[in-house]
Amino acid sequence: MTITARPDMAGPSPTALTPAGPRDLEDAETNAPTSATSKIFNHPLNAWYVAAWEHEVSSRKPLARTVANRPLALWRTRDGRISALADACWHRLAPLSKGKVIGDELQCPYHGLRFNRAGRCTGMPAQNTINPSALVPSFPVVERYRFVWVWLGDPDLADPDLVPDMHQMNSQGWAGDGETIYAHCNYQLMLDNLMDLTHEEFVHSSSIGQDELSNAEFKVTHDETHVVVSRWMRNVDAPPLWKKNLQDRFPGYDGKVDRWQIIQFEAPSTIRIDVGVAKAGTGAPEGDRSQGVTGTVMNTITPETDRTCHYFWSFMRDWCLDSQTLTTFLREGGKGVFGEDEDMLVAQQAAIDANPDYEFYSLNIDAGGMWVRRILDRMLQAEGRPSDARITGEL
Amino acid sequence: MTITARPDMAGPSPTALTPAGPRDLEDAETNAPTSATSKIFNHPLNAWYVAAWEHEVSSRKPLARTVANRPLALWRTRDGRISALADACWHRLAPLSKGKVIGDELQCPYHGLRFNRAGRCTGMPAQNTINPSALVPSFPVVERYRFVWVWLGDPDLADPDLVPDMHQMNSQGWAGDGETIYAHCNYQLMLDNLMDLTHEEFVHSSSIGQDELSNAEFKVTHDETHVVVSRWMRNVDAPPLWKKNLQDRFPGYDGKVDRWQIIQFEAPSTIRIDVGVAKAGTGAPEGDRSQGVTGTVMNTITPETDRTCHYFWSFMRDWCLDSQTLTTFLREGGKGVFGEDEDMLVAQQAAIDANPDYEFYSLNIDAGGMWVRRILDRMLQAEGRPSDARITGEL
Amino acid sequence: MTITARPDMAGPSPTALTPAGPRDLEDAETNAPTSATSKIFNHPLNAWYVAAWEHEVSSRKPLARTVANRPLALWRTRDGRISALADACWHRLAPLSKGKVIGDELQCPYHGLRFNRAGRCTGMPAQNTINPSALVPSFPVVERYRFVWVWLGDPDLADPDLVPDMHQMNSQGWAGDGETIYAHCNYQLMLDNLMDLTHEEFVHSSSIGQDELSNAEFKVTHDETHVVVSRWMRNVDAPPLWKKNLQDRFPGYDGKVDRWQIIQFEAPSTIRIDVGVAKAGTGAPEGDRSQGVTGTVMNTITPETDRTCHYFWSFMRDWCLDSQTLTTFLREGGKGVFGEDEDMLVAQQAAIDANPDYEFYSLNIDAGGMWVRRILDRMLQAEGRPSDARITGEL
Repeated sequence: MTITARPDMAGPSPTALTPAGPRDLEDAETNAPTSATSKIFNHPLNAWYVAAWEHEVSSRKPLARTVANRPLALWRTRDGRISALADACWHRLAPLSKGKVIGDELQCPYHGLRFNRAGRCTGMPAQNTINPSALVPSFPVVERYRFVWVWLGDPDLADPDLVPDMHQMNSQGWAGDGETIYAHCNYQLMLDNLMDLTHEEFVHSSSIGQDELSNAEFKVTHDETHVVVSRWMRNVDAPPLWKKNLQDRFPGYDGKVDRWQIIQFEAPSTIRIDVGVAKAGTGAPEGDRSQGVTGTVMNTITPETDRTCHYFWSFMRDWCLDSQTLTTFLREGGKGVFGEDEDMLVAQQAAIDANPDYEFYSLNIDAGGMWVRRILDRMLQAEGRPSDARITGEL
Repeated sequence: MTITARPDMAGPSPTALTPAGPRDLEDAETNAPTSATSKIFNHPLNAWYVAAWEHEVSSRKPLARTVANRPLALWRTRDGRISALADACWHRLAPLSKGKVIGDELQCPYHGLRFNRAGRCTGMPAQNTINPSALVPSFPVVERYRFVWVWLGDPDLADPDLVPDMHQMNSQGWAGDGETIYAHCNYQLMLDNLMDLTHEEFVHSSSIGQDELSNAEFKVTHDETHVVVSRWMRNVDAPPLWKKNLQDRFPGYDGKVDRWQIIQFEAPSTIRIDVGVAKAGTGAPEGDRSQGVTGTVMNTITPETDRTCHYFWSFMRDWCLDSQTLTTFLREGGKGVFGEDEDMLVAQQAAIDANPDYEFYSLNIDAGGMWVRRILDRMLQAEGRPSDARITGEL
Repeated sequence: MTITARPDMAGPSPTALTPAGPRDLEDAETNAPTSATSKIFNHPLNAWYVAAWEHEVSSRKPLARTVANRPLALWRTRDGRISALADACWHRLAPLSKGKVIGDELQCPYHGLRFNRAGRCTGMPAQNTINPSALVPSFPVVERYRFVWVWLGDPDLADPDLVPDMHQMNSQGWAGDGETIYAHCNYQLMLDNLMDLTHEEFVHSSSIGQDELSNAEFKVTHDETHVVVSRWMRNVDAPPLWKKNLQDRFPGYDGKVDRWQIIQFEAPSTIRIDVGVAKAGTGAPEGDRSQGVTGTVMNTITPETDRTCHYFWSFMRDWCLDSQTLTTFLREGGKGVFGEDEDMLVAQQAAIDANPDYEFYSLNIDAGGMWVRRILDRMLQAEGRPSDARITGEL
């Protein structure tokens, strides 16, 4: 298929993101809303993906998890470090994840071959000499922000500094928890879903949806690896959940609020959503959130196969940090909301598969998602693995 | 694959059907019984297919149904008219059948885009201008004979006069009801099954089967869109079901009967079977059915995919019209019989798939089914979508 | 794909097997342990495969069983002989296995066509003449050793003398019973599993596993259709099961034993494992087993599809022949052990499919399995159906 997405068609040229005050590159209403947008179903490999929560990986029993179409066996050596090996013994491909961790080695469940954390074979049954080429592929691992990140691409490029920022997961001043959703849809559908929250009005009408969402102006900024979509709704009624959250900090407050949603994408598939409300007119849009409450919805999506993904999320907050009751309440609420998304995206994936002749088209609200798509397409081209995307027209 | 079915090999040339007195084109025993008959698994698109019973489509909730490999969302506007739209939003293909009917519009469940009955987009979230090219494919619909018929092919050819005749479904003088069978087999296997009822002796031995069926002479006539297979069994014992039916009208009658089965195919996939018994020698074969009872088994089969179909059937009768007891009794009996067929055809489909190197061959009893195949093959060729059929030899 | 397995690379040339005293062709430790070994997933057709236990095939109801990707209907005529027909009627492929055995004929469940044991059509509905070309493929059958063997390839080559030797199944001096495992893995994985029993230490650690197994020297001999792998462990403690077996014959014996495992492969997929223990130093290695007990694990694996197989096994013994209690005990024990193998092999197959870019490699312990692979590869080449195997390096 011809790749028609070209950098010179990208309209606004990439620009460094200035977090303090994003430059307004585009006005939403001036986007051409109806350009055809091919589906992107593949994923960059030169990137960190979350394989698991850190608590899922132990030195007692290996964890089997497929990342980017590659089955992995994840386990810890005695010093607590995590090893990610291909989940197939060098010998006859028996899954190492069904084996045993013995000291600092992983033993194959079939014939007992042993491998160290680098995947090198350290023992073969009934054999004194071990061929030096006997090894199982191993993959770089970083443990950060309560997650285990793996790198499936060129290991020479696996710079830990490239792990997307999710510092709210375990920083002072933040509390909260999350879960994993295993969804039968391509990871891109999940990204699209998070990059445009106007769907809340329709998919989440009973919880966080609000008419003002679709009507609020939004701004989109980006650089080569980030996209930010900002929405401010000033002097509005808080939806039920946010009214309650604000009252957690300011009991009894019943007035208007300034509400914000700042969606922060970091390539290839991490999205932090800075959300909150403050008493109306107290300066939140200008940077003073002292009269409000702030949450950050942490999202990172890991392709499993072309039709499945693991979606890791957490809701972190800056108020009532010590309340496990609140942590649990917000986590359970999140489960309900994200379950509605999952149902929709699985149905969308099924419709995409059943109508292979139909294209995607984009609306104004997709401006953020289109920049995500363009960034991913560039990453894929850089890897020599171009997507089938036809990203045309003025974004 | 080479198409070897050629009109000039068809033997008897197509001839206008004269319903009053079908011309005997062929004597069954003179057919070449062993010509190889390739399987036809595709279906014409320029044709009306039943998508649903009329009562299945409402203005409250859209109905999802796939016809000829195309997922559809079926719904009614406030004036009761039915709209059939592709079940994939123009924007990102979310299934419209999961959306809401709002007034005369269908709202996408994901981002709230609205479409009218013609599929034109009438509303986009957060956007004042609507691109005039934004539309979802819509398909012609006719509501007739208690069914909703759709046309998936060239809409310019969608002439309502081409809807197959199933007038017994809702005409004075007829009563009865039916159901839908969802079967994991190609629609052609269902047509073959209905075009030759000698299988009753083996598949339905406990209900309507009768030895005389296989032995009775039959006549086949056809024109370009119809095939008729007529069988008369004179002066025979009525099988249990027909004995009961005749006694409904003539209590106590226990004598011989003249029994008939007149199978009437109308392209592409509707088969009416005129069945009944009359007191023997009272003139039924000559046209006087006053001393008998007549039923019509209404059948129309809609391809869903190449391996699945929806089979809509009903049993209509000309006696005891007011008896819901009888309607229910006959419908439930039909369910049992057609369930036996379904089991057989699903097993046949599995065997076809497991033995891709084996051909079909035809017997004398397949004369009707072979004309059906030839008609369908011609329709497919006219659409530039030829089947893989090799219909050879003298039919 | 290029076939790089060449006879001239086979290292030791094939040599006649001398069962009485196999020539030691190779010393295990001198094998090149790390040659890449491609997977072989296809199977010879010119060979006898077990389709069923003899008691599974009756004259009352046909048995449906797929052998080597070909669905079969197996049934008996009145004289007790077994017929194996393709499970698809000549007419329209309805599965004959759902039909009825009527006298010496099999009747199609759909339209009642009848076929004799050779597959020739003997009756068609509503038709006096039967086309002489109307027949269903039939396959040679031999009933031997409690099993029904079928030949899917060239029938002219179907010599009953080629049925693999499993005489212990029903010979004087042997008692025992077995079962069938239906496994979701290629038959080759089952062969590999049986040709190297060092996996017992890891897969069957709780029952028959023993450390000495992996460490014992073994010898491999072969000819063009047989491979023998012999292991003797002298003066060892008997594992729990064998200690009990020996005590069945020599109550109270608690001393050291000489233990043996002699794996006898016969192409394409039969493996007899001569196993046992004798009182240590009583001459068993030299041929005097009078102070021991001998079992033979009979195994024969039949490919169903490329990803499934039927594995027929039985445990035959030469002691306590009359004890049904012992027969049942050993059969149930075998079920447990072979169930562990099945779990492992299904997991291995899944890992193979999930990692199509990874090769097999071989260890010293695979010497027997490598000869099996080479024999199968030669059979496949002789049939003009080469495997994708790359069997390279010094075996």
